Amino acid sequence: MQNTHIEALKKIVGQANVLTSPEDLYTYSYDATPGHAHMPDAVVIPATTQEVSEIMKLANTNKIPVYTRGSGTNLSAGTVPTKGGIVLLMTRFNKISEIDLENLVASVEVGVVVADLNDEVAKHGLIYPPDPGTVATATLGGTISENAGGLRGLKYGVSKHYVMGLEVVLANGDIIKTGGKNVKDVSGYDMTKLFTGAEGTLGILTRAIVKLVPAPEAKKSMMAIFRDLDDAGKAVSGIIAAKIIPATLEILDNATIRTVEDYAKVGLPLDAEAVLLIEVDGIPEVVEKEAAKVMEVLKNNNAADVQIAKTDADRDNLWAARRAALPALAKLRPTTYVEDATVPRSKVPAFLKAVKDIAARNNVTIGTFGHAGDGNMHPTIVCDLRDKEEMERVHKAMDEMFKAAVELDGTLSGEHGIGLGKLPWMEYQHGPQGMNAMRAIKRALDPNLILNPGKLVGEC
Amino acid sequence: MQNTHIEALKKIVGQANVLTSPEDLYTYSYDATPGHAHMPDAVVIPATTQEVSEIMKLANTNKIPVYTRGSGTNLSAGTVPTKGGIVLLMTRFNKISEIDLENLVASVEVGVVVADLNDEVAKHGLIYPPDPGTVATATLGGTISENAGGLRGLKYGVSKHYVMGLEVVLANGDIIKTGGKNVKDVSGYDMTKLFTGAEGTLGILTRAIVKLVPAPEAKKSMMAIFRDLDDAGKAVSGIIAAKIIPATLEILDNATIRTVEDYAKVGLPLDAEAVLLIEVDGIPEVVEKEAAKVMEVLKNNNAADVQIAKTDADRDNLWAARRAALPALAKLRPTTYVEDATVPRSKVPAFLKAVKDIAARNNVTIGTFGHAGDGNMHPTIVCDLRDKEEMERVHKAMDEMFKAAVELDGTLSGEHGIGLGKLPWMEYQHGPQGMNAMRAIKRALDPNLILNPGKLVGEC
Repeated sequence: MQNTHIEALKKIVGQANVLTSPEDLYTYSYDATPGHAHMPDAVVIPATTQEVSEIMKLANTNKIPVYTRGSGTNLSAGTVPTKGGIVLLMTRFNKISEIDLENLVASVEVGVVVADLNDEVAKHGLIYPPDPGTVATATLGGTISENAGGLRGLKYGVSKHYVMGLEVVLANGDIIKTGGKNVKDVSGYDMTKLFTGAEGTLGILTRAIVKLVPAPEAKKSMMAIFRDLDDAGKAVSGIIAAKIIPATLEILDNATIRTVEDYAKVGLPLDAEAVLLIEVDGIPEVVEKEAAKVMEVLKNNNAADVQIAKTDADRDNLWAARRAALPALAKLRPTTYVEDATVPRSKVPAFLKAVKDIAARNNVTIGTFGHAGDGNMHPTIVCDLRDKEEMERVHKAMDEMFKAAVELDGTLSGEHGIGLGKLPWMEYQHGPQGMNAMRAIKRALDPNLILNPGKLVGEC
Repeated sequence: MQNTHIEALKKIVGQANVLTSPEDLYTYSYDATPGHAHMPDAVVIPATTQEVSEIMKLANTNKIPVYTRGSGTNLSAGTVPTKGGIVLLMTRFNKISEIDLENLVASVEVGVVVADLNDEVAKHGLIYPPDPGTVATATLGGTISENAGGLRGLKYGVSKHYVMGLEVVLANGDIIKTGGKNVKDVSGYDMTKLFTGAEGTLGILTRAIVKLVPAPEAKKSMMAIFRDLDDAGKAVSGIIAAKIIPATLEILDNATIRTVEDYAKVGLPLDAEAVLLIEVDGIPEVVEKEAAKVMEVLKNNNAADVQIAKTDADRDNLWAARRAALPALAKLRPTTYVEDATVPRSKVPAFLKAVKDIAARNNVTIGTFGHAGDGNMHPTIVCDLRDKEEMERVHKAMDEMFKAAVELDGTLSGEHGIGLGKLPWMEYQHGPQGMNAMRAIKRALDPNLILNPGKLVGEC
């Protein structure tokens, strides 16, 4: 990037909002993904859509790469500025413009932190359901661009189910509005859904209109311990087959159980093959009825021990094991890869077995926990990035794991995105023809390939 | 189209599956939209995805337009072969391949009639919720391509909320699979949603994986009569604000009420400004609770008369007025335009008033009924296509109506699609920059512009 470009950027957003010192550039050279980092040439912090448009016109004319960034909690290296250029930091887009109670929608700038949005809408008895683990720091724009999910995905869906409209700045600086407050809208291609989960490769999101839903009146949590993985799998399918869609239906495998118990001493039996954690929510009468049915299904599928939370303190205790899963695993070794290979829910036991075999075969430590109800697993590999020989085994294990997921009709990523991290396996899932179609769309909307180049669909 | 092309098509699908007689061509020259018709050169009826792929290779090489068609129930001229070429009739794609109870999905060929799919899944206590008025004849492929909605849209959403995966033949003959059975899937662009609602302009759908949900255990219907339109609007918003999402929340305006009463004698007061019809569904305890709350909201908003169905016969009686709306209006005059301009639900009273003024100002008969809960209105214009002077007034009224919808933050189409019918107003809603972006996508996936050319995004 030339100095004249830096000066032009300063004219657009003001001197103070263009960072170029080595310390600042270093800060924005990486995200939450291990093993990926690259220095940008500048960090630019716009405050208005018009400023973003002017930045894009400059970048497009001069073919300068642009990487949109919120809080950098990304787990697939999606925000790493791998080809230099501009990190476009959207944190000044921090206003909740409107909470519209008649239409149950909110109009929000993309830099708003998801938890802050939820705090605001909670005052009206509403929730914005997508709840990734990073909800306290992640921005709305980041979670929309990654189509983030979370624990409530089974019943409530993921980000794309709540994004109704977007304001987007295209690669050429054009500002467009997609969708809106209309529940039904078939006017043109579904551009809203195309930009959702596009990881900043098709346009820069500036504002969103999101759907809100009434907060559930009541919740009930349960935990069940299984000596046999198949029984746990049957219990998961059995709950759904009983026409119950829990808000949350989580599983921990044996490796995770042992690690959690060692770390947090929550009283899990070390020989358990699986723990299921279930929460049903809704109006109190439904919750009681569904909880009773869930308990029955758990017992009928040979749960060794079943607990139901009677108080809020009980509930917190039950969920302690799930909350401890990632920190406990991460404490084992210096480097943590949290993957999110996802399979249809009926294939969860088969996938967990495959991961166990892959870990043993490659002598790699993998603890798996995740959202059993929607098949979104988190096989978590703990290792040491500095150990070259071990990392070769880790990458071989990853390769086998992603292939196992796809073979089970699954997907590389349920909620973390592809970014750079999972790019090597994209063709395995989509075939060359599927990749061609996606790359054609990328080229159509970003002909100079400046938006988060090389990510999600790779080189075009 | 040359004779050699016809012969080549016969080689692909067999002699019997290429229709070229004038009677056959005439049959497929129009759909359910008044005022649009054009003769195709051939009607081709493939049975396999491979055949579709070969047809597309032939069509793409020779730049022959291809219009995919199911049952032709389209209301926006979306299936009219306006530039000649091939009508690709998908009715032989008529197998339900799998009903997967563990994952609550069905794998279905696109020629299956939606009601037939629902009959099959009902055997397992499940429903496929999208329920356009044409559900008994429309095919799954047509409803997905139009992103069809229906009466249950408010609570259950529209087609796109249920399409999880697609098999698609691209313009160049490439066969791709998008999405799948995974509840969460962020691997690549959301191609499934891009093809859903694309009206056959981006690819040919051959198979779909659709989400199923448990059938509600109980239902309760209510009817309320209002002397004042604003009160009806406040009741609609009040129900939602009370955190109740009815399965169905319908409105009939005064013009429709008078026509229905004249036609069906169901006992509606002729001076009523609006009738609301509401159905809540779910498990019995919830239904009772919600019905009581709805009744309270209706009374608090000055409903002149409120009825609640105690028996199935009662329920049928209440819904008779809604069922009669379209046939009653259609009987008034030779030509019926059922539009679907849609606004945010809080703007329904303002839109109904605007339509009333537009009808009076242009001396045109418009009865409006529709899905008040999700703002999806059906202003229905009855006229005589043969009366040139009247048709000028009709088109002027349409123009004013679509502009009124967009001015109220609405959309041209909630569920019927754009096709040709609403093309003139697309730029009004999306602006030249929005249209450019959509056209870039069209050209990227269909560079020879052979897929349903000139529709949805117009000439490229």
